[in-house]
Amino acid sequence: MSSTRIHNFSISLDGFATGEPQSLEAPFGHAGERLHAWMFATPFCGGDGPAGIDDAFARRHDEGFGAEIMGANKFGPPGWQDDPDWTGWWGEDPPFHTPTFVLTHRPRPPVEMKGGTTFHFLTADPVEALEAARDAASGGDVRIGGGATVVRDFLHAGLVDEMHLVLVPIVLGRGVRLWDGIEALEDTYEIETVSSPSGVTHLSFTRKAVT
Amino acid sequence: MSSTRIHNFSISLDGFATGEPQSLEAPFGHAGERLHAWMFATPFCGGDGPAGIDDAFARRHDEGFGAEIMGANKFGPPGWQDDPDWTGWWGEDPPFHTPTFVLTHRPRPPVEMKGGTTFHFLTADPVEALEAARDAASGGDVRIGGGATVVRDFLHAGLVDEMHLVLVPIVLGRGVRLWDGIEALEDTYEIETVSSPSGVTHLSFTRKAVT
Ligand SMILES: NC(=O)c1ccc[n+]([C@@H]2O[C@H](COP(=O)([O-])OP(=O)(O)OC[C@H]3O[C@@H](n4cnc5c(N)ncnc54)[C@H](OP(=O)(O)O)[C@@H]3O)[C@@H](O)[C@H]2O)c1
Ligand SMILES: NC(=O)c1ccc[n+]([C@@H]2O[C@H](COP(=O)([O-])OP(=O)(O)OC[C@H]3O[C@@H](n4cnc5c(N)ncnc54)[C@H](OP(=O)(O)O)[C@@H]3O)[C@@H](O)[C@H]2O)c1
Repeated sequence: MSSTRIHNFSISLDGFATGEPQSLEAPFGHAGERLHAWMFATPFCGGDGPAGIDDAFARRHDEGFGAEIMGANKFGPPGWQDDPDWTGWWGEDPPFHTPTFVLTHRPRPPVEMKGGTTFHFLTADPVEALEAARDAASGGDVRIGGGATVVRDFLHAGLVDEMHLVLVPIVLGRGVRLWDGIEALEDTYEIETVSSPSGVTHLSFTRKAVT
Repeated sequence: MSSTRIHNFSISLDGFATGEPQSLEAPFGHAGERLHAWMFATPFCGGDGPAGIDDAFARRHDEGFGAEIMGANKFGPPGWQDDPDWTGWWGEDPPFHTPTFVLTHRPRPPVEMKGGTTFHFLTADPVEALEAARDAASGGDVRIGGGATVVRDFLHAGLVDEMHLVLVPIVLGRGVRLWDGIEALEDTYEIETVSSPSGVTHLSFTRKAVT
């Protein structure tokens, strides 16, 4: 059975998944690269950190996925919808290598990139979007790629099977919060926490078996 | 030099230090005892958990303090100010054993309890309150006992030397948030994170030396 997973989703101690304001020059606003420095340091990302816990978690981003779903604000900076040539932050060969569904209220025709990534743009609620992604995933899992708004919507809809959060020891104070309106995840998920020598803490949420 | 410290301050993953509503029957509202179950399980608190990491952290609550400062909402449920006989949640011999300063807009005369705890009630800003507590502490350290509002106010005023937070793997969704209006603590504090086998994560904030 195909499952729906979130990986390497990084938040500050106060629960922000991005700083503000988001822009072309600063995709994460005043957070800069601090939310993802732990990941860039891993061998998986070409960094010179150890092949340890951060690396092991980071690699799961690429394991067994047949599609990704992301939000409009992950795909580009405010206003990208007005630029017909915008094809994402990631250059010619984006790191998804599968059909990738961008949720937006201003859809456009699909764009085929190098390396197996095709961007599809759609206006759809989480259930419909997941159906479309599953159909395209050829039996693979579906990654919910973020940002916070989309993660929150999929949690609310009860569609997430596994979620890996990374708690980064900074206090952002402002940005987009993951937790707003979310409650009692401990009722439906086993939650494992483990700190890394790098200073981040990995939180693994695994959906409990229904008894 | 006397220092100002916070210990065993427990928050949910989404940053709430208490649930809601606070009442005589449920001091932590819908959070119940879940924020402090890790602590009650320690030998320090008479529990049957191991003498491990949670116990080591918990014990620091009692080390070297000459006074505590707490907020009105830690001292009693909403409305305690209307009850002249209210002397706190903790019975005849409260676990402070020092002068203990309760910040409130409706001060009353001091109350001497058993075991060395005397409650003093005062309306004062954090700087003034800390001065009063230091004067009473006979060279000992001053504990900022909470709740969230008071911890936040002392952080804002730059008066906290050490802060031990305990991240409990539950998502409360509502209550009183620790982080509101706090930003960039990483600039002034070293932050160490370590997960316990019990499932909680201890966060130690230590003020950086001024260079
Ligand atoms: N911390 C991490 O690990 C991580 C991971 C990924 C991304 N991020 C960052 O998070 C930020 C983006 O997060 P965000 O919460 O601002 O936004 P987001 O979740 O990326 O996107 C939200 C937007 O997507 C569109 N959308 C969402 N659901 C839709 C639906 N059902 N139908 C149609 N459109 C829908 C809407 O945009 P329109 O109405 O404009 O179409 C909505 O405003 C970026 O800075 C990104 O880099 C962080
Ligand atoms: N998670 C933990 O580890 C932990 C630790 C301690 C407490 N708690 C819980 O946290 C909750 C209380 O937290 P809280 O944030 O609601 O309130 P709080 O911080 O305990 O108290 C805030 C109140 O104290 C009074 N106050 C604060 N500063 C003052 C000042 N400078 N001068 C005069 N009065 C001042 C005001 O009350 P008035 O205006 O009414 O006088 C204010 O509303 C309780 O449920 C408590 O059990 C949790």
